Amino acid sequence: VEENFAPIGVFDSGVGGLTVLNALRHVLPEETLFYLGDTARVPYGNRSAETVCQYALQASRFLIEKDVKALVIACNTASAYALERLKEKYSIPVIGVIDSVAHRAAKISQTQEVAVLGTRGTIRSESYVKALQKEKASIKIHARACPLLVPLAEEGWSDKSVSEEIIYQYLKDLKNTDVDTLILGCTHYPLLKGLIQKVAEGLLGRSLFVLDSGPPAAEALKTLLRTKGLLVSQGSQAACPRGKTHIHVTDYPEGFEETAKRFFDAAGAVFTHVDL
Amino acid sequence: VEENFAPIGVFDSGVGGLTVLNALRHVLPEETLFYLGDTARVPYGNRSAETVCQYALQASRFLIEKDVKALVIACNTASAYALERLKEKYSIPVIGVIDSVAHRAAKISQTQEVAVLGTRGTIRSESYVKALQKEKASIKIHARACPLLVPLAEEGWSDKSVSEEIIYQYLKDLKNTDVDTLILGCTHYPLLKGLIQKVAEGLLGRSLFVLDSGPPAAEALKTLLRTKGLLVSQGSQAACPRGKTHIHVTDYPEGFEETAKRFFDAAGAVFTHVDL
Repeated sequence: VEENFAPIGVFDSGVGGLTVLNALRHVLPEETLFYLGDTARVPYGNRSAETVCQYALQASRFLIEKDVKALVIACNTASAYALERLKEKYSIPVIGVIDSVAHRAAKISQTQEVAVLGTRGTIRSESYVKALQKEKASIKIHARACPLLVPLAEEGWSDKSVSEEIIYQYLKDLKNTDVDTLILGCTHYPLLKGLIQKVAEGLLGRSLFVLDSGPPAAEALKTLLRTKGLLVSQGSQAACPRGKTHIHVTDYPEGFEETAKRFFDAAGAVFTHVDL
Repeated sequence: VEENFAPIGVFDSGVGGLTVLNALRHVLPEETLFYLGDTARVPYGNRSAETVCQYALQASRFLIEKDVKALVIACNTASAYALERLKEKYSIPVIGVIDSVAHRAAKISQTQEVAVLGTRGTIRSESYVKALQKEKASIKIHARACPLLVPLAEEGWSDKSVSEEIIYQYLKDLKNTDVDTLILGCTHYPLLKGLIQKVAEGLLGRSLFVLDSGPPAAEALKTLLRTKGLLVSQGSQAACPRGKTHIHVTDYPEGFEETAKRFFDAAGAVFTHVDL
């Protein structure tokens, strides 16, 4: 029963994973969440598989030492390259952010034609292609690397017309496809969700399902923890108080909280600077 | 005399410093150049002073162990935060990329009103303000942090209209100033020089001096080495062959050479992957 009260460990290359933390906070209000953002080495999206794996192992070790009961890789690039390694290495539940949103996309798409936007690393890994084809072998996938969208989200330009043009550059060759579902395959992109949806729907002339990975990953984790009897609520018969949120970062530059707030409602969260 | 034939060490957070390497290659054709790009942790521009200093010390140590005769910090953010520390620590000549271009700007500007574009870290450090005011106390400075220009240069979108709009967003409030000189205070920006010049001249309605830090830094190093009698040509009475270029990177992702080529004419250069 003591295990039930252990925190859930969540890590990301930086602040993007805070959009996943939002979803976890919403779906699992009673759980304590330990977040680690590797802001000293962000972004992972353009790095090699080998380097991303090494960074993911270091981040996981930090959280494992905090006695977490489960591990969420809240970064698409790290999920793409390191999920299998971490699953082999640790006996606690480990989930990434790719499989659950791919499952949902395959289920929701009427045309069975899906677009995936992500970093160079995520797209190069073909993890979404593999995950979607595992769901339905015949599904048609259009994958697009969009390196400018991460700095755009961090800059907070979600209401500028220039952002629409950047998104248009990345999406324009989807024009004559039957895509009806678009996966935001990077945890930064939810900040640009409205704009991406607007540009994509304008281009295709119809409504689209635009999915981000936070909510399906949070639901998947909840199901997994319940199956294993590891939820806080399964360890206590009394009403459970709201869980705490601890946010650790490997670099804490001036103005960091301002950026973080664009990704996460930080009310009540504790920020700590740590070294890996 | 043996010292004269030692390589010159050059480091940067990633590929941006290759624009400085270009200038060094041009101004000092006989010298052997050892370049280190910390591509595993690029970019430095949004990180804290403390973290940038730590990374700069690690990069310098790597080059010092290669017995370099001088050290060039080919990154504005690292020059801003770590130059003084490295000068204190090492007895060989150490130069950054800020002072020499600030000197040239103060000399060339007719209106004594200068704009500086850079990363958040460089602008926040106020290093250009200090360097320019040291040249002329009365000089007027407009400093602008432009975080999207680094990924824009790396994406290679220097011919897209959307890039003009991004640059316009950063420059538009220079409209009613008397600026006649613009410093590209980040080693990535030379790739966008034509576009930046076009947008700025359109906005201000006159010709501008647009300066990047590579050429003045290369000239400053040449002068410094000559003063100390450390040039290859001062160590040999025979005609000197062309010096070699060694490029070391801490991460070598797929497609890296393609990006590097946008910054440097890599013909004859040797690429090596190293760990710090």
